[in-house]
Amino acid sequence: VNVRRIAQSARKACDAIASAPTSTKDAALTAMARSLSARAGDVLAANEADMADAKASGLRANLVDRLRFAKDKIDSRIRCLEKIAALPDPVGQAIRTERRPNGLEVARVRVPLGVVLMVFEARPHVTVNAGAFCLKSGNAAILRGGSEAGRSNELLGELWREALSGAGLPGEAIQVIGGSHEEVGELLELDDLIDLVIPRGGKGLIKAVSKRSRIPVIKHYEGVCHVYLDAGADVARGIDVAIDSKCLMPEVCNAMETLLVAKALAGELPQIVEAFRRRGVRVKGCEATREAAAGVEPATEEDWRTEYLDTVVSIRVVGDVGEAIDHVNRYGSHHTDSIVTESLARAERFVREVDSGVVLVNASTMFCDGESLGMGAEIGISTDKLHARGPMGLEELTSYKFVIRGEGHVMGPGAGGSDDEEAGE
Amino acid sequence: VNVRRIAQSARKACDAIASAPTSTKDAALTAMARSLSARAGDVLAANEADMADAKASGLRANLVDRLRFAKDKIDSRIRCLEKIAALPDPVGQAIRTERRPNGLEVARVRVPLGVVLMVFEARPHVTVNAGAFCLKSGNAAILRGGSEAGRSNELLGELWREALSGAGLPGEAIQVIGGSHEEVGELLELDDLIDLVIPRGGKGLIKAVSKRSRIPVIKHYEGVCHVYLDAGADVARGIDVAIDSKCLMPEVCNAMETLLVAKALAGELPQIVEAFRRRGVRVKGCEATREAAAGVEPATEEDWRTEYLDTVVSIRVVGDVGEAIDHVNRYGSHHTDSIVTESLARAERFVREVDSGVVLVNASTMFCDGESLGMGAEIGISTDKLHARGPMGLEELTSYKFVIRGEGHVMGPGAGGSDDEEAGE
Repeated sequence: VNVRRIAQSARKACDAIASAPTSTKDAALTAMARSLSARAGDVLAANEADMADAKASGLRANLVDRLRFAKDKIDSRIRCLEKIAALPDPVGQAIRTERRPNGLEVARVRVPLGVVLMVFEARPHVTVNAGAFCLKSGNAAILRGGSEAGRSNELLGELWREALSGAGLPGEAIQVIGGSHEEVGELLELDDLIDLVIPRGGKGLIKAVSKRSRIPVIKHYEGVCHVYLDAGADVARGIDVAIDSKCLMPEVCNAMETLLVAKALAGELPQIVEAFRRRGVRVKGCEATREAAAGVEPATEEDWRTEYLDTVVSIRVVGDVGEAIDHVNRYGSHHTDSIVTESLARAERFVREVDSGVVLVNASTMFCDGESLGMGAEIGISTDKLHARGPMGLEELTSYKFVIRGEGHVMGPGAGGSDDEEAGE
Repeated sequence: VNVRRIAQSARKACDAIASAPTSTKDAALTAMARSLSARAGDVLAANEADMADAKASGLRANLVDRLRFAKDKIDSRIRCLEKIAALPDPVGQAIRTERRPNGLEVARVRVPLGVVLMVFEARPHVTVNAGAFCLKSGNAAILRGGSEAGRSNELLGELWREALSGAGLPGEAIQVIGGSHEEVGELLELDDLIDLVIPRGGKGLIKAVSKRSRIPVIKHYEGVCHVYLDAGADVARGIDVAIDSKCLMPEVCNAMETLLVAKALAGELPQIVEAFRRRGVRVKGCEATREAAAGVEPATEEDWRTEYLDTVVSIRVVGDVGEAIDHVNRYGSHHTDSIVTESLARAERFVREVDSGVVLVNASTMFCDGESLGMGAEIGISTDKLHARGPMGLEELTSYKFVIRGEGHVMGPGAGGSDDEEAGE
């Protein structure tokens, strides 16, 4: 793999993709959807070969499961491509247009970022998703998925190239690459050619990428997410929210891992624990939880920091909303946290003081997704604060430029522009 | 200097400053304005001592000038503090509140970034400015100015501390520090304690900071800014815009350095050159410029990349708007560029294709400042694309969190949330 050449050809494709009309980009997206459908058999075969190798090499079962790109997942990606094609094009959108008192018209206009490098695990559906998001937002993409998905990704890369070329766009606008860790490391130094890196995956991957990268990184860390059941809350509602947050999709990053229960509700713990058990969830708990409900395994300090991504929950009894907030900020991953309460004051305090990208009141953590939040879909969930936080949609893959239109405006002495003699320095 | 302790105490001050009511922050800002006024004599004396040392050590005259913090500059900072106190508080502002079809209320709410480290040259007014911006936007600030301003900065740091304490805020919320380059380097590695670094100054400083930093950086590079005089443009208007862009404040980063002139207007070059000369501007030019107008010094390849920050201009004749755009994107610094034209099509092409933070049509590059653009004021001008581009005001020093309010909403199977089974992963 010639790493610099990959980045250079992505950079070269930038202008064409940045200035492509919406209809051209949408044509490439729907072409990709059509060829995923037409060539589903080939994709399945490539993916099955990847899975067979992965199993043979002893890859853990849940990772093999993530590698799986079966018919239902392919269909879901086809729908996703169609959905993204139908979303409004963020490029060229004017945000906050304003006529200034001096007559100047000032607008911020959305522009693509340039070249986006995505480093992720062996999950072929991300190869489709990330490519689609970058394309629609006018960015060139370099997609580096886990090597276990090598055959699947190679084929998907081929399909992307065909879809782009068919629409008259440079095939290099979406490059699906392999390469060693060392080669990925070299890519991460090319800050003259690549504008943004999005690592998605385990903590180790993200830390390694952030540490090595000279390019700005938006981290998508794991989700150690909480639901806090406040004193005086409607317990039935609380159980509904907690069960939905834990059980609907235990494998996603915004699934709840720890349930915090106000001491005042300790008497409700037996029915809470029972509700999880009925759904096959293994329950761990603090001392107080174990005293209140039978058969709860002890939770260790480590549990509070653990993203199970599985049908396991840890429960902790806390004194009040203040203790709940402290726990969330200390052990959580600043991702997605919810309070179930009847108290407006405590709801507002939780919202204000919990330092997470998504904070919910009386709602399941499942609603932390681009669709629910009105972004149409999402490329990932940022746990950073710079540029984008929480679910990232198309707009979050853009920058902006100020466009100022005048009629020969000069600031001149006393021309009524800035009164600040150090302006603009 | 105990670098880690500085960052830790800034981090500790974060919560208080992030949650401080607007009136408290404004009280600290006006207290700082008052004490700058009351203690102007001390500030002047400290600054004069700095300047005397700087001159004695042979610092270049234009740098000594930047170090100067005389009465007029102090007064200007007092007005600036009052202006920032009067600006709306970005913290807690809800952006894009929306009720979703399922009844969930979704808002993005602005929150401070946390701890902002600013590394800048020996310019004491930045110590006032940057502190004020960080304070008003709810961030803790670590301000490291050039060592030549040591006495001035130490006193200003003291005044900040008093102003904060007087308003009941932790004095560590704004720390003005000295320290060696090595110690600054150590600060740049504390990504667990510091959220953002803004380097302002020469290219060398910014490159060094970016290279060393493990913390996200928003670069404020120099401005190699252009005005392009298009074929068919009103030449008198073009000269007005060019003269304003070059001569009003030659020392600021958004001053024009290179004037591009369409070949069709080559006959106007004598009066253009004469207009600059009358204002004492030294004129360099390409071959074609020198053929058209007498007494123009030759411009070298190096000139096209040079930020003079002085009464010097380089002029280049280009074939058409396409060549002008190529020149700007190739030699410029993606900062601020203007076209003077009567053609709507060419104006739109220039706006679309010039890859700069601020692009103007028929207006002086002087309008690239926070005041003119409706931000009230600015902490600097970003030449990056991530997070903030162009002039950065208070809002650009914030992040946001999603706040979602429901009434026991669960996504459940068929609950009408996302139809995407891979949502939120």
